Amino acid sequence: MIRTEHIGIAVKDLSLSIPLFEKLLASPCYKKETVESEHVQTAFFKKGDTKIELLESLTPDGVIAKFIEKKGEGMHHIAFEVEDIEVEMKRMAEEGFQLLNQTPKKGADNKLVCFLHPKTTNGILIELCQEIKP
Amino acid sequence: MIRTEHIGIAVKDLSLSIPLFEKLLASPCYKKETVESEHVQTAFFKKGDTKIELLESLTPDGVIAKFIEKKGEGMHHIAFEVEDIEVEMKRMAEEGFQLLNQTPKKGADNKLVCFLHPKTTNGILIELCQEIKP
Repeated sequence: MIRTEHIGIAVKDLSLSIPLFEKLLASPCYKKETVESEHVQTAFFKKGDTKIELLESLTPDGVIAKFIEKKGEGMHHIAFEVEDIEVEMKRMAEEGFQLLNQTPKKGADNKLVCFLHPKTTNGILIELCQEIKP
Repeated sequence: MIRTEHIGIAVKDLSLSIPLFEKLLASPCYKKETVESEHVQTAFFKKGDTKIELLESLTPDGVIAKFIEKKGEGMHHIAFEVEDIEVEMKRMAEEGFQLLNQTPKKGADNKLVCFLHPKTTNGILIELCQEIKP
């Protein structure tokens, strides 16, 4: 575990939430990226070392759409950067945390990611992420 | 807005959640602090530039107890460090964000704090915090 890489926030409509966060953070959205595998459109902000990632569902039945249906807009996950995702996934499983994917998958922002089930992490969806090295 | 200072997490029982986060983050809890005004006991972890703050209610009717009753354990707020909290509170009010306290109050970790109402911030309880200068 190196650092808190980003906080993921579920939103209904990026065209409303991007200007809202630009006002809130007094900082521009510096990148938008579609993650096809997760059916989400993302928008990134930088505040110090930790990014804010807004997530809008591309489909009515995507994970973000379902999350908003159940809990409303708001904080969705915390992502921690790790040096070696496979080593960290093995450590997590051994510590009793439940991995939601058994092999790393491609996430936004040039990352390999793995999610941990909130029921083993105090109700928080945790993402482990590792920069994909060239 | 300088940086993402910490992420606040509502927990039922620090004696269970501290060891859980020590395993998750592979990092020790480095500080515990009671905030009488908020009726909470806090525990801090450091991961890079952004801290993780666990919050347990000291009373059955405290804000954290009520939050858990309604939403369960999990992410409670995001705190952003600001240079001058009064200047930032004025800017926020002018931008249309609703302040939950009209004057800065004393929070944990030697900070002056102000909260913004989630209904104006995409469902997220936002804390502005400024280090108290000696």
